[in-house]
Amino acid sequence: MAKVAVLYYSKTGNTEKMAQAVKQGGENSDSQAHLARIEDFNPEDLPEYEGIIIGSPTYYGLLAGPVKDFLDRSIKVHGQLKNKIGAAFSSCATTGGGVESTILSILETMMVHGMLVKGFSDRGHYGPISVEEPDKRALKECRQLGEDIGNLVRNNY
Amino acid sequence: MAKVAVLYYSKTGNTEKMAQAVKQGGENSDSQAHLARIEDFNPEDLPEYEGIIIGSPTYYGLLAGPVKDFLDRSIKVHGQLKNKIGAAFSSCATTGGGVESTILSILETMMVHGMLVKGFSDRGHYGPISVEEPDKRALKECRQLGEDIGNLVRNNY
Amino acid sequence: MAKVAVLYYSKTGNTEKMAQAVKQGGENSDSQAHLARIEDFNPEDLPEYEGIIIGSPTYYGLLAGPVKDFLDRSIKVHGQLKNKIGAAFSSCATTGGGVESTILSILETMMVHGMLVKGFSDRGHYGPISVEEPDKRALKECRQLGEDIGNLVRNNY
Amino acid sequence: MAKVAVLYYSKTGNTEKMAQAVKQGGENSDSQAHLARIEDFNPEDLPEYEGIIIGSPTYYGLLAGPVKDFLDRSIKVHGQLKNKIGAAFSSCATTGGGVESTILSILETMMVHGMLVKGFSDRGHYGPISVEEPDKRALKECRQLGEDIGNLVRNNY
Repeated sequence: MAKVAVLYYSKTGNTEKMAQAVKQGGENSDSQAHLARIEDFNPEDLPEYEGIIIGSPTYYGLLAGPVKDFLDRSIKVHGQLKNKIGAAFSSCATTGGGVESTILSILETMMVHGMLVKGFSDRGHYGPISVEEPDKRALKECRQLGEDIGNLVRNNY
Repeated sequence: MAKVAVLYYSKTGNTEKMAQAVKQGGENSDSQAHLARIEDFNPEDLPEYEGIIIGSPTYYGLLAGPVKDFLDRSIKVHGQLKNKIGAAFSSCATTGGGVESTILSILETMMVHGMLVKGFSDRGHYGPISVEEPDKRALKECRQLGEDIGNLVRNNY
Repeated sequence: MAKVAVLYYSKTGNTEKMAQAVKQGGENSDSQAHLARIEDFNPEDLPEYEGIIIGSPTYYGLLAGPVKDFLDRSIKVHGQLKNKIGAAFSSCATTGGGVESTILSILETMMVHGMLVKGFSDRGHYGPISVEEPDKRALKECRQLGEDIGNLVRNNY
Repeated sequence: MAKVAVLYYSKTGNTEKMAQAVKQGGENSDSQAHLARIEDFNPEDLPEYEGIIIGSPTYYGLLAGPVKDFLDRSIKVHGQLKNKIGAAFSSCATTGGGVESTILSILETMMVHGMLVKGFSDRGHYGPISVEEPDKRALKECRQLGEDIGNLVRNNY
């Protein structure tokens, strides 16, 4: 069974709520979704997953420091994530607050790993976003994300 | 008197409403704001302005084709826009719809011109954004943009 | 047989040389690579291809105007490119001349189409780049790109 | 006398050599350039400087984790860096290795601080880049950067 890692960092709980919805959506797919705080996850375990979804609050228009630290340490498995499916989501504090650039920053790190990065034609294009507490739309997009990536990796592997 | 060009492209009228609010804000500054559709503006006139503000709808996560065409033609004044102040704004059709990456795409072209590009600490960080018709917050941020850039170029020159 | 479209815009011939190398690499895969100038390609034909690779010279840190115009017109097939594989390459005039941001701008448009965008762990991470005339390294990376995407779409479909 | 902070993170010494050249260039301006490892600099001292230049190695296409950590901690002076001049530089390990996106990631954080971010029309457009050890061109662009920002802040204040 294909596996998807849903990794997140959260201080206020907003990104965590989004991560839980992504995990929920993953349960509606034929893959197995694994939810973890990024601090509790060993980057050396990443190669076991066919899909990797990372959520971060928007800190200064980019992924939070601890998420970058995690990705820097993922260098230990550099070359082993090639062609895996990647996606990202983020919550921010204000409209136009750097939430898209945060998602894109995560996706760029995934591209450096040689991954395939997923966009969306019918919703938030780079991944689900939320301004402060995730509303119904944000949570729906998170569930869709988990389900879509879960189905995508199942079909690919 | 310092001059600021407020240039925009608009099909639905949403970006136009934002542009008009930017122009309005510029009138509250000590500079002179000049509003024009980008199709009606000659890129060779850009060096006459101390500030350049460009608005575009979000088309595929980037500035609209006609705006890029305008900027490509601005090569005729390459080197003459050094240290001028630049800013941008955008309207898009859906939440997370590429509106930040659209603004950033405009700002990147301005950086290639050697300009100084303005961010904002207390509102939409890369510039005003709107989802569909600009609401009160969006219009307020547009007026602030016009006023702030107008005051900035007056003090700089 | 899976098909990959290699579309490019070129004035000086540098991006064209890269495109030809991408096409060459595609011939070493089990897919069929189709090379075309972007001006000669109908965006409504995009859904026939499993992979889409787009090359553009770097104009003001972004894709060239005619490439953006093409992508704006691709709205006619919006929703039909979901999960197709996308990649990009670019040539620029000067070191640090906006060539990465050009590739990223193309990849962002592909994400808005819901595509899967490919990064690389062992070479230019976002896609092949060239400063002026493509050298041996650039041409090799272009051939690898054609071959890798060709093999990827064959395995996916 | 206007002051410019030149802050950098470096493991291999490549970014450090660039930072030293930036500092050298700053000495040819009428401002005072202050060079420091980012680990040794208190983000709460940032408001004392009229210009802020940050250098980072390219780690996964973005600023290094410790640089992001520094910028996250700069939230303590949020709102106090408005209209200061910002610039960035980076060294990476491979051609097309994410060095432009690294510089842009730093500049995006500066925009969130409300700063004015500087581009360049006649060299590496977003800031000086180096692939591995900085060569003559890279070092020259670093010296130019220090001198240009030094002169810019002197004239602005």
